[in-house]
Amino acid sequence: MKCKRCRRAEAAVELPSHHSAFCPDCFFVFFRRQVTEGIRKLRLLAPEDRVLVCVSGGKDSLVLWDVLIDEGYETEGLYIDLGIDGYSDRSKEKVLAYAASRGKTPIVVELAKEGIPIPEAARCARMQECSICGTVKRYFFNRVAAEGRFTVVATGHNLDDETARLLGNLLHWQRGHLARQHPLLPGADGGLVRKVKPLWRVSEVETAAYGFLKGIDYVTEECPMSEDATSLVYKEALSRIEDRMPGTRIVFYQGFLDPSNPLRKGAEAAAPAADTARATEVDAEEGAGTPRACASCGAPTYTETCSFCRLKERVRKARSLRAAGGSR
Amino acid sequence: MKCKRCRRAEAAVELPSHHSAFCPDCFFVFFRRQVTEGIRKLRLLAPEDRVLVCVSGGKDSLVLWDVLIDEGYETEGLYIDLGIDGYSDRSKEKVLAYAASRGKTPIVVELAKEGIPIPEAARCARMQECSICGTVKRYFFNRVAAEGRFTVVATGHNLDDETARLLGNLLHWQRGHLARQHPLLPGADGGLVRKVKPLWRVSEVETAAYGFLKGIDYVTEECPMSEDATSLVYKEALSRIEDRMPGTRIVFYQGFLDPSNPLRKGAEAAAPAADTARATEVDAEEGAGTPRACASCGAPTYTETCSFCRLKERVRKARSLRAAGGSR
Repeated sequence: MKCKRCRRAEAAVELPSHHSAFCPDCFFVFFRRQVTEGIRKLRLLAPEDRVLVCVSGGKDSLVLWDVLIDEGYETEGLYIDLGIDGYSDRSKEKVLAYAASRGKTPIVVELAKEGIPIPEAARCARMQECSICGTVKRYFFNRVAAEGRFTVVATGHNLDDETARLLGNLLHWQRGHLARQHPLLPGADGGLVRKVKPLWRVSEVETAAYGFLKGIDYVTEECPMSEDATSLVYKEALSRIEDRMPGTRIVFYQGFLDPSNPLRKGAEAAAPAADTARATEVDAEEGAGTPRACASCGAPTYTETCSFCRLKERVRKARSLRAAGGSR
Repeated sequence: MKCKRCRRAEAAVELPSHHSAFCPDCFFVFFRRQVTEGIRKLRLLAPEDRVLVCVSGGKDSLVLWDVLIDEGYETEGLYIDLGIDGYSDRSKEKVLAYAASRGKTPIVVELAKEGIPIPEAARCARMQECSICGTVKRYFFNRVAAEGRFTVVATGHNLDDETARLLGNLLHWQRGHLARQHPLLPGADGGLVRKVKPLWRVSEVETAAYGFLKGIDYVTEECPMSEDATSLVYKEALSRIEDRMPGTRIVFYQGFLDPSNPLRKGAEAAAPAADTARATEVDAEEGAGTPRACASCGAPTYTETCSFCRLKERVRKARSLRAAGGSR
């Protein structure tokens, strides 16, 4: 099949949801246009922004960084070493190698040095790894951005990620979450940095194709902690629908984001108490209004102590209990 | 495994979504309670109602009729013979046999006699069979009910049907449809009869188990026209989620029906024009306000001529064109 854009080269990527197929060069143009359109439509970034790109070593975040560099944004990469045996080292290697290829040195936060490596913290606190990981990442994304005077934090969530999350929120009618789910979470006074998801219009398959054709070397293994993640169940369900009805995902997400959608507006005002409580647990990025300073670390939060400090305290207590048990 | 209710008999039906397992007798109690709770919660039926039960010969509608008879409601069955070779005859047989076993004679409408058998009408009008079938059924459900002075029409849609429809409406943000999707569609002056779905709280598996254990003989084959129906895609996607997370379907649907859900209220006021147009196409049952009389047949409608008459006219024209073509 010939490329539907240049009509000369052989097509390398077929995209049923766009009724199209592209050769590598034309696909690069298409993909970057999708991303820049996503940025423009929702005003995610301005030319003067200093962007902190959160990179995990996976395809999405490295592709995001690649596109933002190519589009001329001022960016730095942030890698959070989760302290997961083997997986974290392999991921870091990919991040460092990619950064070096673009003449960059990423900022690295090591959770082991911060006293809260994910696997041990999860065991101690008896919590799910993914839940801890979310809290810890959100905390460092914001802290590093605020300390480094970045104007915005960018993450590599793609259309598949966002629609899986949306489906989960709809299946359980988590109205507070629905009200706040958006590729743009505004910043706030008190040190809360704006957060954006510039890849919201491109699918996982498209992102993978871009990374592959661009020769970006990324970690292909899934995080070993996330095997049971419910989001994978939603993702798979949506994939089966998308296969049968190409284009469903983007219609689903754009319809959700439509400013006239009563669900998002209504939910902000009418979020039930239990849901609000859940929302404040995930702290600043998912709250509303002006946050205050955490009594312990000064980070922006909507509770007395931020969820990161509460988590650290929980892990610290569990550790000293274990140590006491061990010395008996 | 023992029955979780009587703790004596062997369990015959396991229900992960209810964390339970029942012997046949206890399952009958459980199932009927689910149905009557669904009727009570949404005030679908009153003791003095005269109920027209629409029976297709499949498990859902025969089980519905069975439960309503057992619960003491005054019911009659309506069978619409769609004129589909073989399938319609086999379905009718099951309906007649079940009705006879309860001392009943169903009302039968034959679409071939009405001049609009589904397969030929679809060919002539160049429309999808399922779309025509929906229009025709809705028309006769209401006409037979109004003529026979029934106070309510009941159909056998179960939780799987309703959630598949809900998912489809959400994926495409069909706000008009979302505003009107409910197990109770109120009647209106002008001959529009109330329509209810008393099985909305029970799943397909539960309904099938009830039918099987009760010895109700039903048609197990799917309608040969509906093989590609998109609702099957949504149903399958939800089944996979339900398998991994039992109870998701009922949480999804009950959360949707919650009167505080901004989606349903907001949508009624703010349905965009295109969506409203789509809604009026499906006529009276899915409209809002007081319908007027169809200029051609007098049936309640929100357009000049009802969709059934427009369909018949389209088929009539196509037929005469063919006949003219044939005589040349």
